[in-house]
Amino acid sequence: MEDKEIWELLENREYAKIKEYLNTKNEVDLADLLERFPQKQQIMLFRLINKEDAAETFANMEPKMQETLVQAFSMKELREIMDDMFLDDTVDLVEEMPANVVDKILQATDAETRQRINTLLNYPEDSAGSIMTIEYIDLRRKMTVKEALKKIKRIGINQETIYTCYVIENRKLIGIVTAKDLLIEDDNKYIEDIMETNIICVNTHDDKEDVAKLFHKYGFIAIPVVDTEHCLVGIVTFDDALEVWQDEVEEDMSVMAAMAPSEENYFGTSVLQHARNRIVWLLFLMLSATITGMVLSYYESAFAAVPVLVTFIPMLMGTGGNCGSQSSTLIIRGLAVDEIQFGDWFRVVFKEIRVAALVGAALAVVNGLRIILMYSEIKLAVLLGISLFLIVILAKLIGCSLPMLAKKLGLDPALMAAPLITTILDTCSILIYFALATKMYQL
Amino acid sequence: MEDKEIWELLENREYAKIKEYLNTKNEVDLADLLERFPQKQQIMLFRLINKEDAAETFANMEPKMQETLVQAFSMKELREIMDDMFLDDTVDLVEEMPANVVDKILQATDAETRQRINTLLNYPEDSAGSIMTIEYIDLRRKMTVKEALKKIKRIGINQETIYTCYVIENRKLIGIVTAKDLLIEDDNKYIEDIMETNIICVNTHDDKEDVAKLFHKYGFIAIPVVDTEHCLVGIVTFDDALEVWQDEVEEDMSVMAAMAPSEENYFGTSVLQHARNRIVWLLFLMLSATITGMVLSYYESAFAAVPVLVTFIPMLMGTGGNCGSQSSTLIIRGLAVDEIQFGDWFRVVFKEIRVAALVGAALAVVNGLRIILMYSEIKLAVLLGISLFLIVILAKLIGCSLPMLAKKLGLDPALMAAPLITTILDTCSILIYFALATKMYQL
Repeated sequence: MEDKEIWELLENREYAKIKEYLNTKNEVDLADLLERFPQKQQIMLFRLINKEDAAETFANMEPKMQETLVQAFSMKELREIMDDMFLDDTVDLVEEMPANVVDKILQATDAETRQRINTLLNYPEDSAGSIMTIEYIDLRRKMTVKEALKKIKRIGINQETIYTCYVIENRKLIGIVTAKDLLIEDDNKYIEDIMETNIICVNTHDDKEDVAKLFHKYGFIAIPVVDTEHCLVGIVTFDDALEVWQDEVEEDMSVMAAMAPSEENYFGTSVLQHARNRIVWLLFLMLSATITGMVLSYYESAFAAVPVLVTFIPMLMGTGGNCGSQSSTLIIRGLAVDEIQFGDWFRVVFKEIRVAALVGAALAVVNGLRIILMYSEIKLAVLLGISLFLIVILAKLIGCSLPMLAKKLGLDPALMAAPLITTILDTCSILIYFALATKMYQL
Repeated sequence: MEDKEIWELLENREYAKIKEYLNTKNEVDLADLLERFPQKQQIMLFRLINKEDAAETFANMEPKMQETLVQAFSMKELREIMDDMFLDDTVDLVEEMPANVVDKILQATDAETRQRINTLLNYPEDSAGSIMTIEYIDLRRKMTVKEALKKIKRIGINQETIYTCYVIENRKLIGIVTAKDLLIEDDNKYIEDIMETNIICVNTHDDKEDVAKLFHKYGFIAIPVVDTEHCLVGIVTFDDALEVWQDEVEEDMSVMAAMAPSEENYFGTSVLQHARNRIVWLLFLMLSATITGMVLSYYESAFAAVPVLVTFIPMLMGTGGNCGSQSSTLIIRGLAVDEIQFGDWFRVVFKEIRVAALVGAALAVVNGLRIILMYSEIKLAVLLGISLFLIVILAKLIGCSLPMLAKKLGLDPALMAAPLITTILDTCSILIYFALATKMYQL
């Protein structure tokens, strides 16, 4: 059904038909659909969504729409939604909403949930604690499979994931049993006999990006989160980890393109905010380029005497920048997926220098031939050849070293990507080129 | 335990101790561990791994090591591993190995498996079919929950994921039941009463990257794959989708940094291969920069007369390039996550132009002040200000348009990233700047 058909049905008050249609849609699609309608219709449509799908649909909406709805809900409606929402989604909601909306939300939750929300809100922003949920199934070692299945049947409905159950003793995590084990093993077996005791878990204060990496490495559906005493405090599920991972990629790409990372999507960001995200780096890089300008002024007499020298500046600067950003991108990715450590510096440099020698030689030869063809000047070809070769070597060296240095200093390696590397290399390229040129042309 | 302790135990033939230690490790870590040993020790260690973990450990290894092991295995050993491996991992293995190794692998599998491998190998490389597995649990609508659980218990051990079961009628997919439903619902209920009939599924020939996006959008654990008649032929699980998604990010980043994408990691790629991956773009961009050089030669008399003009070239080219790559990166990401479509072109351009006007004005003012301070020349400040403003506008315009155009033409939008945009903008920037300069200075 197209949006305009829904509009028509709304106008003709054929709510039953809309309800029927909405009932065929996934919650994520429902949230998308509602976003396309104005406020008044959003609320009307939301009330036509199946009760069972309402909370999940609500959790999938953009914050702005959630705010509208919370303000439009009666206390009873809000309470129903809140009862059905998973705790981690509620926490996300509380974090996004303005204070008066948060008040209304908290009024609609019971005292126990409020306390749990508070606990979760207290974890540092980038920690595993901040993305975990405290809803999970805990079992005892002396339970049988049958008892465990019974427990799941009793409380399972409210758990976000029941596919991994956690075996607890004195609040400590001692084992893991998957739903698959429970489904397959004999009913009378004891949990302690089928549980996995080699547990991979994270600490509440671990960096959430490191947690996301574990999901990628091991392909888990959920990872348990423990405190310093190895007591189980919650679990992180793969969907939340996936989001962390995507945010990280988006953030890296922004930083690598000289922008402040933004949580909003492209159209969701205002023109002013777009400008703000971009201007700081541009200003910094523009002023840094002044240094290259100053180096050029120093050689003013040189290119006044041999003006053709100027025409190679874009090519040299471009090649240096591209070589540098190739290396820096590779190293930034390698650092991000933990393939490369700071201790590998020598190994990386050795590799990059050999690559640079090959690439530099090839570029120097091709460019030399071009110059001889265009200008029939061997001296110029030699000058450009040597310059190119040295610039490529330096570009690869700086391009691979700076991200590793940034990591070592606790900075984001992505800062050392193309824009900054290119600006640094511009100065270096000009210096190398004119130093050689003044020597060779005795200027 | 550190590697050197394992070495010692190996030398002292204390295999029981090694076996005990290996038994405490996750299969992914076991694969990592074995990679750090030479061939002979790899095989010794692999034989000490618990039978139940062997196949999974093997599946997690790099192809080179898999090849070594397959060649070292007896036929009986290989058959045991193959029996325990999931079909999609076996297909990956067959794809990676050289012909003689594939022969040995196929000899170790039964006729039915061989046929299934063949079917899977026949799907196009980038299709959903190529990443799916054909191991899943199928149910009938008239089964009860109890019967379904019994079926899972009977055949579940060999299925990669049992958390989503598929209801089939005349080979057609008519519903989905999650393991959670089965665990929670009453034993005597019929499957048709609890199954979800709003099914999100993909076709065997859908692009695997689109499939990966669905996982991200909906947070599924598995997605069913159907043929053109809506018959169920397999499922894609989230771990395989995650891998597709990561490969895509890596590929985008490579292309955006002017490199040929590589499936290998940094250290796994030889120097020669690294050079090859990088040289093509560098050559192309270097030769393209010749055009900028030619534009510069055209204005040779201008900068021979006013040499100070040359010193601003790096700043103008740098700023243009950075502005362009900011826009192109945003649009490339927006296209990748389906936020932006070709039809949004006008909306995007309108947004970018307003951002560019703000950013351009700010940069022009700051740069103007700097020039007045450094050179006390208002004319120069005005020339640079107007140039900067126009260059920023053009950079944002080209930066946002080219990726969308590429998408429209069926090319990878990531091709239109920083390196190419920068090179194009270099020429434009120089043209704008010198056209204005010759006018203002009447050269």
